Amino acid sequence: MDAIEELALQPCTSSLYLRPFRLTYRQNGAKKFWDFMRTHDSVSILIFNTSRQCFVVVKQFRPAVYMCEVERQHPQLFQNQDKESFSRLEDPLPAVVGVTYELCAGIVDKPHLSLEEIACEEILEECGYRVPVTNLKKITSYRSGVGVTGSRQTLFYAEVTDQMRTSEGGGQPEEGELIEVVEIPLEDSMKFAYDETFPKTMGVIFSFTWFQNNIAPKLPKK
Amino acid sequence: MDAIEELALQPCTSSLYLRPFRLTYRQNGAKKFWDFMRTHDSVSILIFNTSRQCFVVVKQFRPAVYMCEVERQHPQLFQNQDKESFSRLEDPLPAVVGVTYELCAGIVDKPHLSLEEIACEEILEECGYRVPVTNLKKITSYRSGVGVTGSRQTLFYAEVTDQMRTSEGGGQPEEGELIEVVEIPLEDSMKFAYDETFPKTMGVIFSFTWFQNNIAPKLPKK
Repeated sequence: MDAIEELALQPCTSSLYLRPFRLTYRQNGAKKFWDFMRTHDSVSILIFNTSRQCFVVVKQFRPAVYMCEVERQHPQLFQNQDKESFSRLEDPLPAVVGVTYELCAGIVDKPHLSLEEIACEEILEECGYRVPVTNLKKITSYRSGVGVTGSRQTLFYAEVTDQMRTSEGGGQPEEGELIEVVEIPLEDSMKFAYDETFPKTMGVIFSFTWFQNNIAPKLPKK
Repeated sequence: MDAIEELALQPCTSSLYLRPFRLTYRQNGAKKFWDFMRTHDSVSILIFNTSRQCFVVVKQFRPAVYMCEVERQHPQLFQNQDKESFSRLEDPLPAVVGVTYELCAGIVDKPHLSLEEIACEEILEECGYRVPVTNLKKITSYRSGVGVTGSRQTLFYAEVTDQMRTSEGGGQPEEGELIEVVEIPLEDSMKFAYDETFPKTMGVIFSFTWFQNNIAPKLPKK
């Protein structure tokens, strides 16, 4: 388990990662505005290892998730923040409250690469499998965070074998990524999907369900 | 279709809706920071009208989604923004590119109400059905926007009948909501879920699939 220490919180007045904008407009005659954030589209991939009949997902410490739990315990923490303040978090919660299970995923920020190529790069970087682009099957696309970002997320399915694993994965430490690769056996996957004691994204739950409906019936019988 | 006019974009330096924070911390010894936003937890509800065997979803213009499409067409728009600038959008895209299909949903901002009570309020406000709290079935919960907000979203299922419809719904115009209630016939629902020409959230796709697996088999045969 990760050691998370020396936590401190401050308001963020300028960020390379969060780019807030305000759109003013008139809707059916009524003047309105909406604050939103520009972000990148993204890809995510349901990875199924056929050698060992398991899903390959990632697990990582998510500061935003962690701070949701901190606020639940200490609602006053965010209320007294002005632009100058800087609060040390004494007696922090255990890191595990901020750890989530997610599909392998990445942002679409390389205009010269296709979505499939970006997805394959992420599978290699995060999970250590070298997958040919032709192995990817698109499941569908949808809008995420429609109130705040509205970006398009495209979901792929990839089958891998143990022979395709060429590295440990784990993300790019030079970009601060610290990702644990986790295997969920197929036979436990629906129980895992609906077990709320394992915090996870809807992408995990949905894609496991999609697999049950679309891929599992065609698997060779044991 | 909504008329969307007089669009203008500006950087947003202060917002009641977007509250950016920076968390600094040490993870396994390495000093890091993460910029994130505080937001509320939320509830969403898959509504099935048993009188007419259809799902009840909402449809609305989403500025964040719209601006994703604007950027796709005019990538320079966001690049030249400094704190002072204010850009009118000449020759805007049609409003329809920003309209998404979503589950009825709402934020959890009333500490004296249960999640179920908040969900029932949203069903009434947005879709016009008066549903007893005991009609709600929790499907599951998960984390949304793990990179940016990490908030917890709880998904419910509610069956309604035509007799429960007491108003038109449509949201709270005084809060700027302009929501269209849309019925998706059960027999068309899986085709709709995977038809990417109708922009939608993953919540719609997942919950329709959940219904097929968990509720449809128990429906009385026609």
